[in-house]
Amino acid sequence: MKAPKTAAILIIGDEILSGRTQDTNVAFIAQRLGEKGITVREARIVLDVTQTIVAAVHGLRAYDYVFTTGGIGPTHDDRTAEAIAQAFDVKLERNADAWTRLVAHYGSEKAINDARARMAMIPVGAKLLDNPVSSAPGFQIGNVYVLAGVPKIMQGMLDSLLPGLEGGAIIHSRSVSAELPESLLAAGIQDLETDTLSVGSYPRFQPGMPPMTTIVARGADPQAVEHTINKVAELMVTLGATPKFN
Amino acid sequence: MKAPKTAAILIIGDEILSGRTQDTNVAFIAQRLGEKGITVREARIVLDVTQTIVAAVHGLRAYDYVFTTGGIGPTHDDRTAEAIAQAFDVKLERNADAWTRLVAHYGSEKAINDARARMAMIPVGAKLLDNPVSSAPGFQIGNVYVLAGVPKIMQGMLDSLLPGLEGGAIIHSRSVSAELPESLLAAGIQDLETDTLSVGSYPRFQPGMPPMTTIVARGADPQAVEHTINKVAELMVTLGATPKFN
Repeated sequence: MKAPKTAAILIIGDEILSGRTQDTNVAFIAQRLGEKGITVREARIVLDVTQTIVAAVHGLRAYDYVFTTGGIGPTHDDRTAEAIAQAFDVKLERNADAWTRLVAHYGSEKAINDARARMAMIPVGAKLLDNPVSSAPGFQIGNVYVLAGVPKIMQGMLDSLLPGLEGGAIIHSRSVSAELPESLLAAGIQDLETDTLSVGSYPRFQPGMPPMTTIVARGADPQAVEHTINKVAELMVTLGATPKFN
Repeated sequence: MKAPKTAAILIIGDEILSGRTQDTNVAFIAQRLGEKGITVREARIVLDVTQTIVAAVHGLRAYDYVFTTGGIGPTHDDRTAEAIAQAFDVKLERNADAWTRLVAHYGSEKAINDARARMAMIPVGAKLLDNPVSSAPGFQIGNVYVLAGVPKIMQGMLDSLLPGLEGGAIIHSRSVSAELPESLLAAGIQDLETDTLSVGSYPRFQPGMPPMTTIVARGADPQAVEHTINKVAELMVTLGATPKFN
């Protein structure tokens, strides 16, 4: 059986770290990659600072894939292309294909002001990624995929590139919940994990509601996942609760 | 003028990286810290793997503060206390104060099964943090604050500890929006940034709607922030749009 591929996500943007904007890109990318058998092992959120982005890319390049979001627009705070060029030690130069796409998007060369022209500056050796929504192209260089930060645009770019990615073993996930505190389930679930199957325990706390715990089993073998979650359900019954499969 | 303090956030949990659970802790912590003059400079999301957590703590300890969320409950996948002990090269042992709190929460020593007893295992030298919602105490060791992962519980713990934290210069933020593509604002805003004031540009794309851009100015000097955002508003008027202050 082939192994899952691994990935890291790098979210670039002051607005996420200030708390002004709620990131949703990590969860979206993780779900889509999961469907291809690519497991996200780490995510980082960094400021719009060139050297910070460079350092983060170096810290994440050992995964099979790295996906960045943010910082590829036309304004002064869009520093991702420059940072990626530095991380790969290549020049940033006007990409003829990106230029053609910008001209098509804006209708004429005359409409390409200096700010828009910045979006055609792409690291040498990178391959453009389609952007079905707006004008700034993303790009791929080595194992790094550089996407837009705006969720709708990022999602369009990701969905365009996914069919071309090599996937790995799909990780199957099943879960079951019951009105029990996780401290009563703990002993019964602690030995269910194996090298190839993980078991997570997620409590819910809501004032005035009984404690509820969801147990999630994840692994490449769907029958082993199913078997494990059925065992957890039996344990829940033994403890006097009614399991609900999610 | 004092400088802002810096912080990093470490989100610990497979469920965030699988995309099953949408993280909201980064944004909440960042906002609360911002009100104290503590700026979040980096966030990382990692798996429930001890050595991974240890490595991330080492990578983030240079900031003034590190806040972790997740992995302090009673089940086998709660590995944060063990990882923090390793990162600080101290032992994990039963904390008498934590034990007393667990007994009070569960009503008797007899109710403390092995799983619940795990929540009293705290790195030597750590100081407990109050948990107004559930039983697992958080703790502080050095500049690292270890909080629960469940948002409601994490929020209660953070709000309890914030009054005791040393803050720094408050970063003031103002923003203004207009129905303009950011590529038309770019030239006029690119020189507004200074060493102590950042200017961010955030486009909105919605199908069938005109492009809209929000410009955010952030800095410790509220008058400089105000002045900058007024300049941006004037620029928007010059470009034929109606600025809306947010």
